[in-house]
Amino acid sequence: MKGDVGTMTVVKSTLSEKALGATAPALQDTLVDLLGLSLVGKQAHWNIVGPRFRSIHLQLDEVVATARAHSDTVAERAAALGVSPDGRPETIAATFALPGTKDGWLRDTEVVELMVSTLEAAIGRLRERIAATEEADPVTQDLLISITADLEKERWMFAAENQSH
Amino acid sequence: MKGDVGTMTVVKSTLSEKALGATAPALQDTLVDLLGLSLVGKQAHWNIVGPRFRSIHLQLDEVVATARAHSDTVAERAAALGVSPDGRPETIAATFALPGTKDGWLRDTEVVELMVSTLEAAIGRLRERIAATEEADPVTQDLLISITADLEKERWMFAAENQSH
Amino acid sequence: MKGDVGTMTVVKSTLSEKALGATAPALQDTLVDLLGLSLVGKQAHWNIVGPRFRSIHLQLDEVVATARAHSDTVAERAAALGVSPDGRPETIAATFALPGTKDGWLRDTEVVELMVSTLEAAIGRLRERIAATEEADPVTQDLLISITADLEKERWMFAAENQSH
Amino acid sequence: MKGDVGTMTVVKSTLSEKALGATAPALQDTLVDLLGLSLVGKQAHWNIVGPRFRSIHLQLDEVVATARAHSDTVAERAAALGVSPDGRPETIAATFALPGTKDGWLRDTEVVELMVSTLEAAIGRLRERIAATEEADPVTQDLLISITADLEKERWMFAAENQSH
Amino acid sequence: MKGDVGTMTVVKSTLSEKALGATAPALQDTLVDLLGLSLVGKQAHWNIVGPRFRSIHLQLDEVVATARAHSDTVAERAAALGVSPDGRPETIAATFALPGTKDGWLRDTEVVELMVSTLEAAIGRLRERIAATEEADPVTQDLLISITADLEKERWMFAAENQSH
Amino acid sequence: MKGDVGTMTVVKSTLSEKALGATAPALQDTLVDLLGLSLVGKQAHWNIVGPRFRSIHLQLDEVVATARAHSDTVAERAAALGVSPDGRPETIAATFALPGTKDGWLRDTEVVELMVSTLEAAIGRLRERIAATEEADPVTQDLLISITADLEKERWMFAAENQSH
Amino acid sequence: MKGDVGTMTVVKSTLSEKALGATAPALQDTLVDLLGLSLVGKQAHWNIVGPRFRSIHLQLDEVVATARAHSDTVAERAAALGVSPDGRPETIAATFALPGTKDGWLRDTEVVELMVSTLEAAIGRLRERIAATEEADPVTQDLLISITADLEKERWMFAAENQSH
Amino acid sequence: MKGDVGTMTVVKSTLSEKALGATAPALQDTLVDLLGLSLVGKQAHWNIVGPRFRSIHLQLDEVVATARAHSDTVAERAAALGVSPDGRPETIAATFALPGTKDGWLRDTEVVELMVSTLEAAIGRLRERIAATEEADPVTQDLLISITADLEKERWMFAAENQSH
Amino acid sequence: MKGDVGTMTVVKSTLSEKALGATAPALQDTLVDLLGLSLVGKQAHWNIVGPRFRSIHLQLDEVVATARAHSDTVAERAAALGVSPDGRPETIAATFALPGTKDGWLRDTEVVELMVSTLEAAIGRLRERIAATEEADPVTQDLLISITADLEKERWMFAAENQSH
Amino acid sequence: MKGDVGTMTVVKSTLSEKALGATAPALQDTLVDLLGLSLVGKQAHWNIVGPRFRSIHLQLDEVVATARAHSDTVAERAAALGVSPDGRPETIAATFALPGTKDGWLRDTEVVELMVSTLEAAIGRLRERIAATEEADPVTQDLLISITADLEKERWMFAAENQSH
Amino acid sequence: MKGDVGTMTVVKSTLSEKALGATAPALQDTLVDLLGLSLVGKQAHWNIVGPRFRSIHLQLDEVVATARAHSDTVAERAAALGVSPDGRPETIAATFALPGTKDGWLRDTEVVELMVSTLEAAIGRLRERIAATEEADPVTQDLLISITADLEKERWMFAAENQSH
Amino acid sequence: MKGDVGTMTVVKSTLSEKALGATAPALQDTLVDLLGLSLVGKQAHWNIVGPRFRSIHLQLDEVVATARAHSDTVAERAAALGVSPDGRPETIAATFALPGTKDGWLRDTEVVELMVSTLEAAIGRLRERIAATEEADPVTQDLLISITADLEKERWMFAAENQSH
Repeated sequence: MKGDVGTMTVVKSTLSEKALGATAPALQDTLVDLLGLSLVGKQAHWNIVGPRFRSIHLQLDEVVATARAHSDTVAERAAALGVSPDGRPETIAATFALPGTKDGWLRDTEVVELMVSTLEAAIGRLRERIAATEEADPVTQDLLISITADLEKERWMFAAENQSH
Repeated sequence: MKGDVGTMTVVKSTLSEKALGATAPALQDTLVDLLGLSLVGKQAHWNIVGPRFRSIHLQLDEVVATARAHSDTVAERAAALGVSPDGRPETIAATFALPGTKDGWLRDTEVVELMVSTLEAAIGRLRERIAATEEADPVTQDLLISITADLEKERWMFAAENQSH
Repeated sequence: MKGDVGTMTVVKSTLSEKALGATAPALQDTLVDLLGLSLVGKQAHWNIVGPRFRSIHLQLDEVVATARAHSDTVAERAAALGVSPDGRPETIAATFALPGTKDGWLRDTEVVELMVSTLEAAIGRLRERIAATEEADPVTQDLLISITADLEKERWMFAAENQSH
Repeated sequence: MKGDVGTMTVVKSTLSEKALGATAPALQDTLVDLLGLSLVGKQAHWNIVGPRFRSIHLQLDEVVATARAHSDTVAERAAALGVSPDGRPETIAATFALPGTKDGWLRDTEVVELMVSTLEAAIGRLRERIAATEEADPVTQDLLISITADLEKERWMFAAENQSH
Repeated sequence: MKGDVGTMTVVKSTLSEKALGATAPALQDTLVDLLGLSLVGKQAHWNIVGPRFRSIHLQLDEVVATARAHSDTVAERAAALGVSPDGRPETIAATFALPGTKDGWLRDTEVVELMVSTLEAAIGRLRERIAATEEADPVTQDLLISITADLEKERWMFAAENQSH
Repeated sequence: MKGDVGTMTVVKSTLSEKALGATAPALQDTLVDLLGLSLVGKQAHWNIVGPRFRSIHLQLDEVVATARAHSDTVAERAAALGVSPDGRPETIAATFALPGTKDGWLRDTEVVELMVSTLEAAIGRLRERIAATEEADPVTQDLLISITADLEKERWMFAAENQSH
Repeated sequence: MKGDVGTMTVVKSTLSEKALGATAPALQDTLVDLLGLSLVGKQAHWNIVGPRFRSIHLQLDEVVATARAHSDTVAERAAALGVSPDGRPETIAATFALPGTKDGWLRDTEVVELMVSTLEAAIGRLRERIAATEEADPVTQDLLISITADLEKERWMFAAENQSH
Repeated sequence: MKGDVGTMTVVKSTLSEKALGATAPALQDTLVDLLGLSLVGKQAHWNIVGPRFRSIHLQLDEVVATARAHSDTVAERAAALGVSPDGRPETIAATFALPGTKDGWLRDTEVVELMVSTLEAAIGRLRERIAATEEADPVTQDLLISITADLEKERWMFAAENQSH
Repeated sequence: MKGDVGTMTVVKSTLSEKALGATAPALQDTLVDLLGLSLVGKQAHWNIVGPRFRSIHLQLDEVVATARAHSDTVAERAAALGVSPDGRPETIAATFALPGTKDGWLRDTEVVELMVSTLEAAIGRLRERIAATEEADPVTQDLLISITADLEKERWMFAAENQSH
Repeated sequence: MKGDVGTMTVVKSTLSEKALGATAPALQDTLVDLLGLSLVGKQAHWNIVGPRFRSIHLQLDEVVATARAHSDTVAERAAALGVSPDGRPETIAATFALPGTKDGWLRDTEVVELMVSTLEAAIGRLRERIAATEEADPVTQDLLISITADLEKERWMFAAENQSH
Repeated sequence: MKGDVGTMTVVKSTLSEKALGATAPALQDTLVDLLGLSLVGKQAHWNIVGPRFRSIHLQLDEVVATARAHSDTVAERAAALGVSPDGRPETIAATFALPGTKDGWLRDTEVVELMVSTLEAAIGRLRERIAATEEADPVTQDLLISITADLEKERWMFAAENQSH
Repeated sequence: MKGDVGTMTVVKSTLSEKALGATAPALQDTLVDLLGLSLVGKQAHWNIVGPRFRSIHLQLDEVVATARAHSDTVAERAAALGVSPDGRPETIAATFALPGTKDGWLRDTEVVELMVSTLEAAIGRLRERIAATEEADPVTQDLLISITADLEKERWMFAAENQSH
């Protein structure tokens, strides 16, 4: 194995080329969504200020834990299908497509709104991928369904507390 | 508080302005080093191939766990000193200064070399910051010392297995 | 927000109105089935008599634990889709549609028969909802599938011990 | 044992008939209070909205856990005294005498007020039963005292946060 | 301290002599009841035969665990009041007043009947001691109440399975 | 709520004014006894010297853990009854009525004697409060009984080792 | 029930006969695949030799644990559908259709190749059964999907380390 | 090492050839007994029906856990002595010498009888091997003794419940 | 099974009659030694006074835990061999042959001496039974060896602290 | 040792007299700060009222746990250096120099402000002691640095939530 | 006890002098073997380099843990027999008879060979002691057998990975 | 890499040669102190006799655990800096410079004195190394500080119990 291993087919895929064509981008895009979400969630975890600081500070760590755990499963799913996953800093920065955050301190109300919209965007994109992978790979589809279930639960919690008196 | 909270002094620093001037960049730069290291470590964790796959795959997750835990402490230390930490994807991509990795699959020997050089670069930068914060803030210095101890241990382990027969 | 929050759209649904029309009643009806099952299971847990008392007394607590855990997930799934779940005592009493139990002590053989028929009825209704939500919301369908798997396992166990010599 | 086991004396009581006459309704009524409280607590847990969503959502699960645990002990105490406990859905709906809740979403302030008044009503009824069982059965009385201690602590917590600025 | 420590007043009692006169025998007699119960329970645990062997074998170990734990608390309560507890083999053999068991193998139905009657006798004696210690020492009374609660629960379970078809 | 919240009736008591009049001081005085005991216990834990250092050093930490846990329950019980508990340093110093300790190192024999007399005094006071709260609030009385049981056990242990050869 | 229970319909299926006709063999064949895989995995676990002994020895135990856990779920799923599962030694030997292993010691490189091919064959057969059960029983299909996800992850790990330098 | 590793002496034995001649078949035969027992135990675990289903279903899993744990120790003991253990499906099917089971559902009474006779046969064979290895290898003998102790305990439990009324 | 089960051969022994003749009394006598030891150990645990109270009080509970655990194994070993074990209070009192203790408080020095002599007597008797069972049943012998190892360790600890200055 | 142990040099210091002169008061003053902080934190924990009750009630217990743990380490550090630590109620009351609290109920906003100022005062004093012990005892300095790190993190959290909208 | 305790008979042996003459050196020599093995194992754990660094680094810690645990049991066994064990540095250095290691870094292949030969030597010596103690003390023999079982397993693992391709 | 790896520079140091010159011997000498301390501590743990046997026997195991844990960290710190650590038996015996112990049984009073003097000597040497490494390597200095803190705490405990009456 003297050539460049980076672009070789290292792990033969158990999917047909066509199925892989639908599944691979669904996994790579989900990986970037989740890694970006974990970074944005931590950014808000550290920079939040306001009367609800402690409650939302803790809630954001649950989002980060969910995003990190699913990103690992998604990347290893890609590898298991013979597709090299890409979660490098430059790739996330270049392709992250969800609402992010400005720098500096963030008011608690801003953070709640941010999480509602970021999670909502992530969910919308996931639902498209659930449809796109149904025929191509039900195993990947099942993984995307379980991620969506978790993110929809988290979106609800932020939306429920996004109610003024 | 109707203005932009992002740039306000939210948490009054317990350090003098001069001391803060030395401490703040040390923390921000360490944060980026650690977040970048955690992403690069995961990238290698997913893309490694070769006879030593399993052993190094597990070892990389220990690096990632160390980097994630310390990045959280470093960011919260910055906040505790009244400095807003910045760990957003675009910030990491723009300011990450350690050796990173190419995309695609990575041979196990390449990964070991990569981790030796990435950790070595991180350690060199940390030792400069240990010196820079000694007068300014011994509390921050103590944190940087404990991070250096962990990264030097990890560097040794990769260096020790970076020996051909 | 001065109006009556009870009937407002608090959490915007990620589903289309049509999809929600199929999903919402599936979740509400499952919620009542599971809450009712947890109450009936506890009633039998407390009132069972006969030589097999201890074994079935313990088995019923596993049914109750399963029913309670799933009822929580189902109700929060409804909320996540923007639908207010209803698990109040009067709602359960009015809409519980599975075989229940008479008051007073219950012989162990009666309890086994009761659980076989109650679980069987619950499963039949769940299988209809699995079909009904397939197009509308695969995330909800996946949840209903996992509940059905658990209840079918429990039904088997009661059926297997419902054999006289 | 060919007759109807439901109304038979299955477990001979260790209490005199008179003592049992005072103790049995105390236990049955406490059982319904606690089961109803657990259902109402879950209903609020699922339907609460407002800025304090997360904190009270978690607090309600502690109420539910307390109510469920005590309801099990109370029902088994009744059975231990030879009295068949009745916790069926229709019995709860028919005899639940504490303040309940309307359907639909609930504002966090409404939930706090609801819990203060529901717990307060439950405590008032428990204190009457503590007096009523003192002579009849000190073992049952001791159980009712421990339930009261828990509910009074929970009432205090809701009352303490039921203070506007 | 050259004299015989055995009969000295080593720990001064916090009770009056009269109160101690009511409390001391209540504790010593309860100690013997519980130690004897733990031995009889183990005897049945080892010698039971019959189709319900496994279920009752396990149930008996719960009785033994309860009896052992309470016997320790009771003996240490006596010591705490300055009364030397006596749980020696010869004392148990000479003063154990609950129904015991014959030697040799025991049918499962026999064991269930044995436990119902042994526990029932223990409960009857405990209830007398609850009355006897009410004025003398409410701390001891509270302990006796909690033991009674546990034994009454265990009696119910054996009684409930002591029902033929 | 613009007035001074400190002296307001924040949590409405579930007791009558007369019952509260008996219960409130019992709780406040027990709180000070327990907080003082925890501080004195730690003081001895740190300053003990002598051949039995290690054994008693560990034993004292059990006293401190008991005292701290009960002090929290007692203070929250007061709050639950609508009475503001007072455990401030100046209040403890001003109202602590149990035997305390001199400063400096303490011989192990001195420590054992100290703990016997401090615990004995605490128990005597608790027994008076058990009597005083019997009518007023059986829930508070039950709590005081359980504290007394623990302190009497600890007193016995120190008294038992307070025997010279 | 005097007849031969072995061939009776003991647990009535919740599936139609046609659906059962597609589901039953999918479950029975998966059962044999997984039991065989667990035996082959252990055989390699014990007989592997070579420089990578320890790493692959541990990795194989993870395969065995996965195979054993899923085999239990699959067999109980068959039973839950009223189909008697068959996992007897003679059945496995007669119907195991995946690549097995020769007797005697096995080189580590051989083991890695064996596991890649055995897992690959298992996955191919599982994917056919996922398609075959989609209409017949989505609950069984969901189980087969989760097994496939696990085996594909394990195949990737062996394939990734099956790369020479 | 280009030859066939399978039949090489890979691990030099610490026993003499004669001692190994007595020990090796004792271990290989015990391995097959235990693997077969684990498969038969699981077969009964899945296929049992009758009133005692749950109790024996759980009991069988304890047999399986014991058999699996001991089979691993036995196989690794063989390897430690330089003997390649053989636990492949075809080997078990060909050499399993204990009473097995027919296919299809099994009545609980049948299962109890089956386990008594299978365990009894296993014990008889183990006792012969204990004698055979006494001189040859006391380390192996000690292992066989501990397996016998466990199987004799399990045989007793099935025998004790194998008693009709 | 209408006869008296108590004296029947319920569990057929795996030993010859002669071997059983040597093994059965060894187990029965060990059972009584251990049960008696557990009661004597608890008696000393409760009645000990003197400067070393706490250390020996804790040490005695380790003796009791060891004695209880081994007594259970010994009794179940007897049952496994078809011999009904007898651990009833009257049997212990009648046949306990180790040094016991007087009633009343016990000085710490007395307790240490007591445990040295009681354990020494138990060990002497066990060593005779190890010899007596060597031929008869190596499985029982192995159990007696492990009990002896534990009791000899405990004897050493009491002997080591039985040294005056 | 007949003299007064209290003022003796019991543990010879490993520091020079001069170094001890700088270190001893740093430790004693820190001990009082931390014990006082733990009492004030508990006072607020019990007396807080307002909408943020639950969140801050829990947060205060983290402050108390931190203060208690560090106070133990600080006092034992003093003892290790041969200096008797003084944490008696009267000493705390007399020398506690941080902002305390008034009696009675406390609004949540008041509590947040209180904790910000109390922690800020404690940090200022700790930073002086870090400087004072640098030369005298780097071991003590390291302990003070770790306490400061924890208190600065806690101060930040209260300061971050001390922001009105 | 004014004489030199070091050479006194402190704990009277439960063995005859002759038996002790065979047992005592077996235990002392095993103690030195195990302590030496634990030091050599750690030396290799720290100094190993080469591609297999991580896997063997972890494996060596398992050897060290085994050696330490057994050395403690062996030394306490000697003490229990009245023989003072000697594990001082100078004793180990003077009497350690197994293959040790040179100083400096060690290649992974060297380490594997070292462990095979060191463990092999230890096993050979243990097997002689098993024979030597059979008559003298079966309790000690049983301990030596269990140590041999563990070391033979560890030797196999190193031998199995000591195979070049 | 055909040369002798033992003396090669395997891991490039992150320190300058001069800094390494100060740091390397500090680590090597600390390693020997700690390994020797762990052996001496175990020697005393096994050979101690006297009334305080049990308490000090347990205390010594804490010293050993501390010494072992720190020795591992110190040796790996040396390796991380590119320095091969030497903890072989012969090295410890040749270079151990702390007070050791004679062979044979040791009185408890002797053991306490021994530990005071051994720990005191270790501390004195550590404090010199803390000074010596301050400039050279603050990471190593920080490690030495934390070891000193632990040993000074342990020295205090032995010194505190080294007080006669």
